[in-house]
Amino acid sequence: MNRISGSKKWPLALAAAALFVLAASAPAEEGMWTLDNPPLKQLKEKYGFEPTPAWLEHIRLASVRVGDGGSGSFVSPDGLVLTNHHVALGQLQKISTPQKDYVADGFYAATLAEEIPCPDLELNVLYSTENVTDRVQKAMTPSMTPKQALDARKAEIAKIEKESMAKTGLRSDVVPLYSGGEYWLYCYKKYTEVKLVFAPEQQIAFYGGDPDNFTYPRYDLDMAVFRAYENGKPTKVAHYLKWSAKGAADGELVFVTGHPGSTNRRMTMAQLVYQRDIAYPNRLASYKRRLAICRAYASRGAEEARQAANIIFGIENSLKVSTGEYEGLLDAKLMENKAAEEKEFRSLIEAKPEVKQMVGDSFQAVAAAIEKLKSRQTELSNRNLPCPTLGRFALQVVRLVAEVKKPDGLRLEGFHDSQLDSLKFRLFSPAPIYPGLEEVQGVDTIKQMLDKLGPQDPFVKAVLEFGPTPEEAVKALLAGTKLTDPKVRTQLVAGGEKAVAASKDTFIVLARKVDPILREQIKWQEENIDSFVSPAGEKIGQALFAVHGKSLYPDATFTLRLTYGTVKGYAMNGTLAPSKTTLYGLYDRAVSFDNKPPFDLPQRYIDGKDKLDLATPLNFVSTLDIIGGNSGSPVINRRGEFVGLVFDGNIESLVGRFIYDETANRCVSVHSAAMIEALKKLYGAQALAKEILGEK
Amino acid sequence: MNRISGSKKWPLALAAAALFVLAASAPAEEGMWTLDNPPLKQLKEKYGFEPTPAWLEHIRLASVRVGDGGSGSFVSPDGLVLTNHHVALGQLQKISTPQKDYVADGFYAATLAEEIPCPDLELNVLYSTENVTDRVQKAMTPSMTPKQALDARKAEIAKIEKESMAKTGLRSDVVPLYSGGEYWLYCYKKYTEVKLVFAPEQQIAFYGGDPDNFTYPRYDLDMAVFRAYENGKPTKVAHYLKWSAKGAADGELVFVTGHPGSTNRRMTMAQLVYQRDIAYPNRLASYKRRLAICRAYASRGAEEARQAANIIFGIENSLKVSTGEYEGLLDAKLMENKAAEEKEFRSLIEAKPEVKQMVGDSFQAVAAAIEKLKSRQTELSNRNLPCPTLGRFALQVVRLVAEVKKPDGLRLEGFHDSQLDSLKFRLFSPAPIYPGLEEVQGVDTIKQMLDKLGPQDPFVKAVLEFGPTPEEAVKALLAGTKLTDPKVRTQLVAGGEKAVAASKDTFIVLARKVDPILREQIKWQEENIDSFVSPAGEKIGQALFAVHGKSLYPDATFTLRLTYGTVKGYAMNGTLAPSKTTLYGLYDRAVSFDNKPPFDLPQRYIDGKDKLDLATPLNFVSTLDIIGGNSGSPVINRRGEFVGLVFDGNIESLVGRFIYDETANRCVSVHSAAMIEALKKLYGAQALAKEILGEK
Repeated sequence: MNRISGSKKWPLALAAAALFVLAASAPAEEGMWTLDNPPLKQLKEKYGFEPTPAWLEHIRLASVRVGDGGSGSFVSPDGLVLTNHHVALGQLQKISTPQKDYVADGFYAATLAEEIPCPDLELNVLYSTENVTDRVQKAMTPSMTPKQALDARKAEIAKIEKESMAKTGLRSDVVPLYSGGEYWLYCYKKYTEVKLVFAPEQQIAFYGGDPDNFTYPRYDLDMAVFRAYENGKPTKVAHYLKWSAKGAADGELVFVTGHPGSTNRRMTMAQLVYQRDIAYPNRLASYKRRLAICRAYASRGAEEARQAANIIFGIENSLKVSTGEYEGLLDAKLMENKAAEEKEFRSLIEAKPEVKQMVGDSFQAVAAAIEKLKSRQTELSNRNLPCPTLGRFALQVVRLVAEVKKPDGLRLEGFHDSQLDSLKFRLFSPAPIYPGLEEVQGVDTIKQMLDKLGPQDPFVKAVLEFGPTPEEAVKALLAGTKLTDPKVRTQLVAGGEKAVAASKDTFIVLARKVDPILREQIKWQEENIDSFVSPAGEKIGQALFAVHGKSLYPDATFTLRLTYGTVKGYAMNGTLAPSKTTLYGLYDRAVSFDNKPPFDLPQRYIDGKDKLDLATPLNFVSTLDIIGGNSGSPVINRRGEFVGLVFDGNIESLVGRFIYDETANRCVSVHSAAMIEALKKLYGAQALAKEILGEK
Repeated sequence: MNRISGSKKWPLALAAAALFVLAASAPAEEGMWTLDNPPLKQLKEKYGFEPTPAWLEHIRLASVRVGDGGSGSFVSPDGLVLTNHHVALGQLQKISTPQKDYVADGFYAATLAEEIPCPDLELNVLYSTENVTDRVQKAMTPSMTPKQALDARKAEIAKIEKESMAKTGLRSDVVPLYSGGEYWLYCYKKYTEVKLVFAPEQQIAFYGGDPDNFTYPRYDLDMAVFRAYENGKPTKVAHYLKWSAKGAADGELVFVTGHPGSTNRRMTMAQLVYQRDIAYPNRLASYKRRLAICRAYASRGAEEARQAANIIFGIENSLKVSTGEYEGLLDAKLMENKAAEEKEFRSLIEAKPEVKQMVGDSFQAVAAAIEKLKSRQTELSNRNLPCPTLGRFALQVVRLVAEVKKPDGLRLEGFHDSQLDSLKFRLFSPAPIYPGLEEVQGVDTIKQMLDKLGPQDPFVKAVLEFGPTPEEAVKALLAGTKLTDPKVRTQLVAGGEKAVAASKDTFIVLARKVDPILREQIKWQEENIDSFVSPAGEKIGQALFAVHGKSLYPDATFTLRLTYGTVKGYAMNGTLAPSKTTLYGLYDRAVSFDNKPPFDLPQRYIDGKDKLDLATPLNFVSTLDIIGGNSGSPVINRRGEFVGLVFDGNIESLVGRFIYDETANRCVSVHSAAMIEALKKLYGAQALAKEILGEK
């Protein structure tokens, strides 16, 4: 499943700086293009298609960013938002109870009154963008030290965001593109009043489970429908996607608008080698460890299994993604190609004296920063607060009350004025927290720290003050906290520094104690890594434009991108994969596996089989260049109609983080026809189908 | 498709000598065991199954060798023989005409009277085997030169075969096993009066065409039914396989009896390197060249396409097999494993002084012979008579009349008394010969010779005496021959040396002229290669027994073998392949490809869909260790019942020529249930279904 996974936890300096370009210009179907720089030339030359500004505006305003890891689109004038089931999964789990499991059973609201409010889902629609590169760059002067320049840049960015929010009332984010070669101000209309309209059983949304995840041929109805509200009423939107019930034909030109999370196609070789030799092996080991812990918890009983399902799903997903990416890095040919590309880029830089001077020793600066990073790598990636939800909330509370008192520009990332609404929305969420699940993960976090850092590490010591063993420490932490109650979190934040300083809540006590240790780490990273890598990235990004003009797209940043491609099968497993699958194939796979999990069908599909037209297309593949974060993105034809719902990439697409290969990299989507067929014939969701089809 | 392909054309010395052993004992599911040495220990330990001598005799006598490249089994007491459509394909093509195309349309004889006689299909049933190693080895004395020893061995083998045939009336073949470590006399009951009972459309037998060939999941009804006759009446057989309509369950123990063509699992490293660096690249280039020629011919029109279909199918099949095998050889890990195994085997030999002395310099002798072979490699593999069918027939006629006058032991291989019946059966076949198809291939054969050998080569010169260019030479050859008429071939042979010497038939004239050139090559190979490799092989084969006892199976030799395994899916394409597919999957694949060739369904399947139970299993996979030649083999359960029909291996199985890997090497079979479902509901073949099910 293509949701953002893992990548957000990468060391900041490396995630931010991805620094060089693949080739003189992006090949045929490649590219996650910003909407200010769409690939008009390629579209005209290859397809004779010239999207108008109105066409581009329409698809932009119909596109929705969903939560902090997914995409979606408006599909009715009354605010219906279509996304993936796996993007909605967190919300489905949060509204479920031991008595009513919407994840397993699905949900359909036939009327507005039946729709269920989501506890903490934020939707964003990109209203405007503005190039603020000049302003950001002018904030820095040549006389500044690297750290001063870094601080100045951050302060200016926070200022731009704050001004914009005050002026427009919109969520305002400054986004570095081309590793800082450009800075853009993105302003979003925000919806936080969102209700659930429809979700199928997870069994069919995620049919084939972890084995089939990131593979094709595929048979998943990975869809969920929300409705955006404003002031208690369904929002009215002028821009939504009209539905094409017949979908896209084999070979047809299609588009995706969505929010790819991150790619690393422009990393330098030094960065790639670091990823291959250090970052990925560590990350994979950590996933495996956590997965084992959560699976053991889930095996305790049905309710534990329900609680842990979303986390297990997420880790399995991340593990499969990272394994595929890691295998790419281990591929000697890929690394050779990357080295050749960097060599070519650097020789182009050498050939232009003014560019050469501007770039200076930027490549070496990145390599040096990585060497420095290695010296503290173990601390940086292992000092984690035990219990993922409670630990995170405690640290956010402690930091929030301190940061808001500082000038906006000097605050920690995540605590700028423009970011506070979204932060509080999640921090004060009424979604349930499961102590048992927190406990097992907390114990393991401490054990891992003990393994990696030893008992003398100050962070570890602080944790073990609550108990001599990981088990006892976590038990004490859980016994002494009330942070599971969102009201308590709200009251603490309302009480400010004084209330937080006085709190005897165990998690708050721990967070107060370790925050200085973590702040020292952040400061060290800023001074030693970011202060060098950020300007190097900016210079290399500018060299990119100097050498290639703007014929390029930037690495993904979880901001709106346009990609184009064709519906197309590929050579696979010694034969051909067709461009689409059908409902026949779903039943084939179920019977082939004797209807055993994860290949079992929901009862509804067994009982309702004869109602279905089994020749209905179910999933399809295209050359669209996507990555985690694109999940839920609409697939759009040249008439701007909705033809499919992105939900995954094939196994060959995983290496797409580093390099796009059109021969086998495929985006996997749910076909529009299958959604209507299922809604009408299996779910009795006539009203929803009519609204989507515009028939009401 | 798993028919013997290409391998028969390998240089004799290399095909005959495959010399070392994989490991101390064959791992779990591996092995193509002779029926004198079945894997009783493994079966007992792993499955608690102890086949009785009667069980083994029963399945041996129910197993049929089909033609010169396939397998089959008796499935009724009245001589019904079930095999693959692709094994029957040659016969189907030969009985077809421009007016009636049984390949495309299929065939069903509801009554005995409607059954169609096959022009030249020979069936063999293994009646007895006898170890004749001592007799063969005693024919050679230490005082003989290598060439004398080779001749003595061949003469003794011919003598044993002739004596046996005279005594038993059975087809009698002496088979070298374990690269000559043992020699066995195999006696077969032979059926040459064979009629076609049933064949489906090739479109469904070979559904998915070349792309799906050698892959899985798969959806093929690759079956054909013949009936063996004796004296104009259906033969009565005591041993035939009872039908299990429900087939084998996932995880069930199953067996195959069949005739694997050749494997090279015991080749020395020197041989493997030769295969990798010289034999495979040459072979692949030659296949590609011939395929292009035949496809161009087929594109001329419908009738040309019909004529060329079987040849194109064969070359595509060979090309896919050889590509898979070649990729295996290019895999550095496989070669490392092979080197390690040879090293271990040789160190075990070193450890036993008497074995060490016996083996002597055998490994070096093989390597030296290969070096010698390289010196004439280009001539040996390129001097071919133009026009594959007519050229072969002409050479056989010229040689036959000469060879029969010699003492049996001194004749060329293929012309011993015991081999003459089968040779004449094919040589005098009434099957049609297509001059157009002979022409295009003939022209290309000459062009290829010109490229590789140049115009001064005596063989090339002899061919070009018929015309100054390849085109003109072939035109003249075809204009001056009557060998297309089987009566002419019969008369020439009947007329003996005198008639052949007097013949002005162009192909006979050419064959007379080039035969001495080819005989010199054979002699050179015998003196320089076989005389050294054969005794080396024997010694290494004996070392095998000395080191490992008889816990091993010999490389495949197109003789009856027993393999065992389990019905089992495998990890594939990032996910799992199920152990079976269903009719649902067939329709999925057809609709997924918009019913376009080679994924289109016969009209019968479109019209008859609603009659079918789509949940019927269609194909299934097992760990059975098979290779080309096993096509048409029965899959048998422990009750000795027929549960499936072997027709292919998956893409991962191709490397099985050199090494068996249970994790992904799978045998692909047609499920017994699908055959009955199709016969009854789509083909109206109630009588045949009843006979197979024993219901009549």
